[in-house]
Amino acid sequence: MGRRYETVSFLSDFGVEDEFVGVVKSVMREIAPHAVVIDLTHGIAPFDVRGGSLALARSIGYVASGVVMAIVDPGVASARKGVAIEVAGGEGVLVGPDNGVLAPAVSMAGGAGRAVELTNAEYQLHAVGATFAGRDIFGPAAAHLCNGVDLMELGDPVDADLLLPGVIPLPQADEATVIAQVLWVDRFGNAQLNVGPDDVPRGFGEQITIRIHTPTDPSGGTTRSARRATSYAELSGGAIGLVVDSSGMIAVAMDQRSAANELGLDVGDQVTLTSGDDDVAAHPQPVSIRPH
Amino acid sequence: MGRRYETVSFLSDFGVEDEFVGVVKSVMREIAPHAVVIDLTHGIAPFDVRGGSLALARSIGYVASGVVMAIVDPGVASARKGVAIEVAGGEGVLVGPDNGVLAPAVSMAGGAGRAVELTNAEYQLHAVGATFAGRDIFGPAAAHLCNGVDLMELGDPVDADLLLPGVIPLPQADEATVIAQVLWVDRFGNAQLNVGPDDVPRGFGEQITIRIHTPTDPSGGTTRSARRATSYAELSGGAIGLVVDSSGMIAVAMDQRSAANELGLDVGDQVTLTSGDDDVAAHPQPVSIRPH
Amino acid sequence: MGRRYETVSFLSDFGVEDEFVGVVKSVMREIAPHAVVIDLTHGIAPFDVRGGSLALARSIGYVASGVVMAIVDPGVASARKGVAIEVAGGEGVLVGPDNGVLAPAVSMAGGAGRAVELTNAEYQLHAVGATFAGRDIFGPAAAHLCNGVDLMELGDPVDADLLLPGVIPLPQADEATVIAQVLWVDRFGNAQLNVGPDDVPRGFGEQITIRIHTPTDPSGGTTRSARRATSYAELSGGAIGLVVDSSGMIAVAMDQRSAANELGLDVGDQVTLTSGDDDVAAHPQPVSIRPH
Repeated sequence: MGRRYETVSFLSDFGVEDEFVGVVKSVMREIAPHAVVIDLTHGIAPFDVRGGSLALARSIGYVASGVVMAIVDPGVASARKGVAIEVAGGEGVLVGPDNGVLAPAVSMAGGAGRAVELTNAEYQLHAVGATFAGRDIFGPAAAHLCNGVDLMELGDPVDADLLLPGVIPLPQADEATVIAQVLWVDRFGNAQLNVGPDDVPRGFGEQITIRIHTPTDPSGGTTRSARRATSYAELSGGAIGLVVDSSGMIAVAMDQRSAANELGLDVGDQVTLTSGDDDVAAHPQPVSIRPH
Repeated sequence: MGRRYETVSFLSDFGVEDEFVGVVKSVMREIAPHAVVIDLTHGIAPFDVRGGSLALARSIGYVASGVVMAIVDPGVASARKGVAIEVAGGEGVLVGPDNGVLAPAVSMAGGAGRAVELTNAEYQLHAVGATFAGRDIFGPAAAHLCNGVDLMELGDPVDADLLLPGVIPLPQADEATVIAQVLWVDRFGNAQLNVGPDDVPRGFGEQITIRIHTPTDPSGGTTRSARRATSYAELSGGAIGLVVDSSGMIAVAMDQRSAANELGLDVGDQVTLTSGDDDVAAHPQPVSIRPH
Repeated sequence: MGRRYETVSFLSDFGVEDEFVGVVKSVMREIAPHAVVIDLTHGIAPFDVRGGSLALARSIGYVASGVVMAIVDPGVASARKGVAIEVAGGEGVLVGPDNGVLAPAVSMAGGAGRAVELTNAEYQLHAVGATFAGRDIFGPAAAHLCNGVDLMELGDPVDADLLLPGVIPLPQADEATVIAQVLWVDRFGNAQLNVGPDDVPRGFGEQITIRIHTPTDPSGGTTRSARRATSYAELSGGAIGLVVDSSGMIAVAMDQRSAANELGLDVGDQVTLTSGDDDVAAHPQPVSIRPH
């Protein structure tokens, strides 16, 4: 027997309108009645593997030790693997499809330890349809892990290096410009960028010019001025801010209003940051002119 | 004292925007602190008794043993009865209004055992308004059952044969045509029909012609070709499929897209299935011509 | 050590689309694994402190004894205080921002006992951004309270009289007219008014004339006739009713239809109630004419 776990943290794109989440929890309750399930969220957009991987990565530093199950699985019942991956010396096990949804969280948890493909039918439910792996494969795997079933019992070992990586866009930057991308728009309309506070040079000043390129905008983008801030309340009077958010990333934000709605921002949009300080702009760095 | 239960599986049309679900759980927590509540779903459309009964029927084979509470109750505070019904020799008790929401699940669980109308005010809350039976009647009943209060203590025995049945539409079929109805459209846009794989004759071939009649469609319906499939991934390139879903029923589905949106399908729409195989169509069965 | 608690009742405007609620629960699970969290609702509209305070006030009479955490916090990371307030001789502790969201519930629970500002960093998480007090301040405070940490350990005592009050609009009434306001529109379209059954004089009769003023209605309002009722089922045939709802307040309601949609009612709209009984209208009270 392996280590027992007390908690399953559960993320999916199942939504809360259908009974999918409830059925998976019911199955786990019958197998491992002692395990407590914490819903991280089930509001990931349908089939949005990248959105799910980012939400999981934002959460992973806070989840209780135990099993973490993430099911965003457009390839269910196809050749894609179902996997379980140990992290942090066995303090946690991530369970889900091998399509990249787990990869950023595994990385943030220090990288993969032992890993298996969930092939052992003894630890699965047998159903007429093959379209609900949460109920038939992932949920049972999570529950059996909670009961102390050793990871290696759940299936065939897989080389963690062969697991599908996640894809997180990196910002592009030079001394004068940072080209960022919107990773996430939350319920309050804050638009998280793929840059941290250190990625925006101090020399840009306190006022930053942001240029927003949305796919549907034929004019080539909107330009606005945004202020570095540490709270929303600093942005009174409708000011736009660049706030260090709860993930430690820069978010385009407003006070008690949705910056995303106001600026037409959505996930994937490109946002270019440049210095908005007139003094800085008026005193550009010297450029040496040299012959070719 | 009767049997004690550890789990209440809870389905309703309460939604998650208001505090209804939380208040019912709070009441149960005070009465039976040991009971764990599993939310099947609270996303049933308001007043949709049939939709609730179908979601419960899809779930009932997976719920943990214990109490199952289903509250879709447009007739709250009227003459409709509140009931508790034992199933599976007392392994489970279903609690809810006697309006058909429980009936298909009771049937799938093997039929009703003992049943009572929830008339005993000792096991109810007394509130100024009579409009929240979940808080005042059903939740307390479920919690007292968890505490080992015997079913017969909760009210007057009722004859299970007199409980209101659920209404599930049966498909119509002959050798050449199956007339089905959409029972459920899930978050991913899969449209579950009221037919299983055995209801669609093998002789129809692998390609099935589906004709969709929606109430708002003046043209008399759309005709499309759909392929039998066992996973969504088989339907690459925008193909429409007839997939055996997680309930073992046939669902009209697409790969990583909403078939319901694509085809304009909604609950209650009629879908006619005929053979889509040209060979079959070109070689119709002989028709004997006989005098009247 | 103080008293230990077993339950945290949790209300917020976090929604269920993002992972906010799950992360707060994860943090609490690590600190106080024995505590059970009951979600009252997370569907309060973003930044809607008044809406949150009303939902909490409607719930407070039913929550399990323990910690009650309410987070609707537009001023997060600003100078607004985070507080914990004992009620009912320590049977409960309310935790949240000091912006009025807790005030009506504190009042309904009998008023504030000991109270502290949550200033002790030993009982907080330390994060890069300051925008997620639920995760970093309120959740940890609730969990430590469950573990028996005494309220006074969490920070500096504050005078409960200095806490920000909630604002609930009072109805205006004379013998002939009651001017009410819509406090809440629930999922089923019932529009709760800020009047109880005793606020509508018996002399108005059973049929009440309601006049609805919505901000967007240039015509000065719609007039309809509504019937006093104790259940929705009494309102068959599309009648409009004034039903005593589950909070003991008067709600404008219809049977299996949304009265709010039908009448264009929203939170904050003014509704004027007068007698709708012809006999009453035809026999007005005598008015004495006296010289000035």
